[in-house]
Amino acid sequence: MPKISQKGQRMPASPIRKLTPFADKAKLEGKKVYHLNIGQPDIETPEGMLNAIKNIDFKVWAYTPSEGTLSYRKKLTEYYNKLGYNITPENIIVTTGGSEAITIGMMACLDPGDEVIIPEPFYANYNGFANQSDVVVKPILSYIDNGFALPPISEFEKLITDKTKAIIICNPNNPTGYLYSQEELDALKELALKYDLYLFSDEAYREFCYDGRQFISPMHLSGLDENVIVMDTVSKRYSACGARLGCLITKNKAVLAAGLKFAQARLSAGMVEQIAGEAAVDTPDEYFAAVNKEYTKRRDTLVTALNKIEGVYCPNPGGAFYVVAKFPIDNADKFCQWMLESFSYENQTVMMAPATGFYSTPGAGSNEVRMAYVLNNDDLNKAMLCLAEALKVYPGRAADI
Amino acid sequence: MPKISQKGQRMPASPIRKLTPFADKAKLEGKKVYHLNIGQPDIETPEGMLNAIKNIDFKVWAYTPSEGTLSYRKKLTEYYNKLGYNITPENIIVTTGGSEAITIGMMACLDPGDEVIIPEPFYANYNGFANQSDVVVKPILSYIDNGFALPPISEFEKLITDKTKAIIICNPNNPTGYLYSQEELDALKELALKYDLYLFSDEAYREFCYDGRQFISPMHLSGLDENVIVMDTVSKRYSACGARLGCLITKNKAVLAAGLKFAQARLSAGMVEQIAGEAAVDTPDEYFAAVNKEYTKRRDTLVTALNKIEGVYCPNPGGAFYVVAKFPIDNADKFCQWMLESFSYENQTVMMAPATGFYSTPGAGSNEVRMAYVLNNDDLNKAMLCLAEALKVYPGRAADI
Repeated sequence: MPKISQKGQRMPASPIRKLTPFADKAKLEGKKVYHLNIGQPDIETPEGMLNAIKNIDFKVWAYTPSEGTLSYRKKLTEYYNKLGYNITPENIIVTTGGSEAITIGMMACLDPGDEVIIPEPFYANYNGFANQSDVVVKPILSYIDNGFALPPISEFEKLITDKTKAIIICNPNNPTGYLYSQEELDALKELALKYDLYLFSDEAYREFCYDGRQFISPMHLSGLDENVIVMDTVSKRYSACGARLGCLITKNKAVLAAGLKFAQARLSAGMVEQIAGEAAVDTPDEYFAAVNKEYTKRRDTLVTALNKIEGVYCPNPGGAFYVVAKFPIDNADKFCQWMLESFSYENQTVMMAPATGFYSTPGAGSNEVRMAYVLNNDDLNKAMLCLAEALKVYPGRAADI
Repeated sequence: MPKISQKGQRMPASPIRKLTPFADKAKLEGKKVYHLNIGQPDIETPEGMLNAIKNIDFKVWAYTPSEGTLSYRKKLTEYYNKLGYNITPENIIVTTGGSEAITIGMMACLDPGDEVIIPEPFYANYNGFANQSDVVVKPILSYIDNGFALPPISEFEKLITDKTKAIIICNPNNPTGYLYSQEELDALKELALKYDLYLFSDEAYREFCYDGRQFISPMHLSGLDENVIVMDTVSKRYSACGARLGCLITKNKAVLAAGLKFAQARLSAGMVEQIAGEAAVDTPDEYFAAVNKEYTKRRDTLVTALNKIEGVYCPNPGGAFYVVAKFPIDNADKFCQWMLESFSYENQTVMMAPATGFYSTPGAGSNEVRMAYVLNNDDLNKAMLCLAEALKVYPGRAADI
């Protein structure tokens, strides 16, 4: 029998999905499971976007240009230029989800053995995508005690070798919700320029900034045009994760030319999605205001409830819709599995993602858990009640922290 | 300025799109351009598939399972089992186009430096996908004189090293239209078993077999379950290229498990597409009968017209909707560009794909051209008239062949 690749053997399983069989079993046993494990919002997709799907009038569902339709890229340009990105449609390659923006960006810039520095905890799939391209991830720890702020630049410099080609940031951050400040971005800019590094900016959660905080992109920084590659998606912005529509944005012409060749190999992104994505850009401001208000409320509910539980600590994040909290437990993987397998409170339990899957450093995050506040307030309260009871009786409870 | 990757530099441009700037210029000059360069059919997508899009009734455009929705995989199983594949939904991973079935299959089975043997001319993007994974393509020449039949197995054996992990076939073939016989597939089976190789079967054109010929898949061969990986797409079957919906099928559990991890990293395929794809399986037989009749007519028109031109030879292919023809020319790349740049007949010209892009062996196919018969009969006739005139006056005309 032929053997699978070493790459296939090494490929990490998704940390947010690996406990799914236990959740399925819990449900079969009649338990109500609150899903805080996955960033699938319950927010409705804008009507204009769904109507665009319903109103398609083509007869042949055809390929679109590999870089995306001009019409969609023009509309996206409107959207990004309102944010001050100062781009043209030629700066955009439309991709199949933010995922493909990441893989095309990596392939255009990094060869096997090249290194990319990523503050951790980080979006777990970066590990998978790096493995696909045989790229080496060099993690750099950020800490819950200061809310997962950017580690000091001196720590980045310690990791730089002649193989280092890029830094990836996710802003606001998944999984921590941390929103980078102007000072932090300026520091990253200096670093990128000093060592000639690409700065990949994953901005999937750009619209989700709370308490009046301002989102700042590396695209807003001057003198960094050749270094910045933005990876974006409509998934979270319009609660349209199933659209698989994203884009890569850069002003670096060599990256655009190489990226286009990778885009040509897979022919094109989806046609219906680009039609819907074009309509989405006209989503009224009220939609975002309502969504922001809802998420702020949920965050407040979740963070308040968590910090009330004895031994739990959760920073109050400035963006995205995740928190990483520290629990008084021996091992987050065990605890999350135990919650599904062995615990219930009033026939309910909670599914969470062990934070270990978001770290690349072995052992890091072993008492941390990621939660997505993608449920309504009432369910969040029930889930937190459930969690508080669980932590009282969990056999692996550690001394308070 | 940071440098792009060597992989990005090496990445081949798409041979069917690289002449597009010349076509655009010709159109600006007012020329009518007949597009025989790209496999984008003019055939209408089945109504049931388009109606499924128009009738969506979800409120949240959500992620689907990474392996595809169970509902769509069940329906696909129905379709494949009618063909005698004898599979279950667990044997399927739904992908973003046939393209992703190829990349996931390659990543699950092949590491950097591993070798894959492919009879050439072959679907040009295999080169790009192999480059993405740092896999080495070992081409094996097939010849126009016998209609691009499978090269003798002894020729394959000459190429086998301890790095050889797989063979890729495309059946019916793009670009040649050749349909593999039972004997040829049996020979490939023996070879795969003897050397423990994966047999990747690209079956994008399965529905397009002419003159009553029968399509045979490696899935029909017994004893080969651990070796066969089918890569499929709805693009051509339902004239739905812009859906970007495909799948990978195998009975090899290790490949499925590894493939699922790659699928998890990119989260999911499109949701609307899977709904439409499910409806597509119920497309009535009459649709396929009409399409088959139309393509048979077009093939006959094209092949007859080509062979009437002095110095041209074109085999009569058994499937797909492409031909590769030999022209009395010095260089196919030059000729195809000249057609767009410097030639017109009654203000018309023809865009074709130089066959060189479908070969990996340097210099091979330099007097061959691929044409897709995706235009109606009337336009095909006009295009052939135009081509005949062009060959009379082309300055790089070679001695007759």
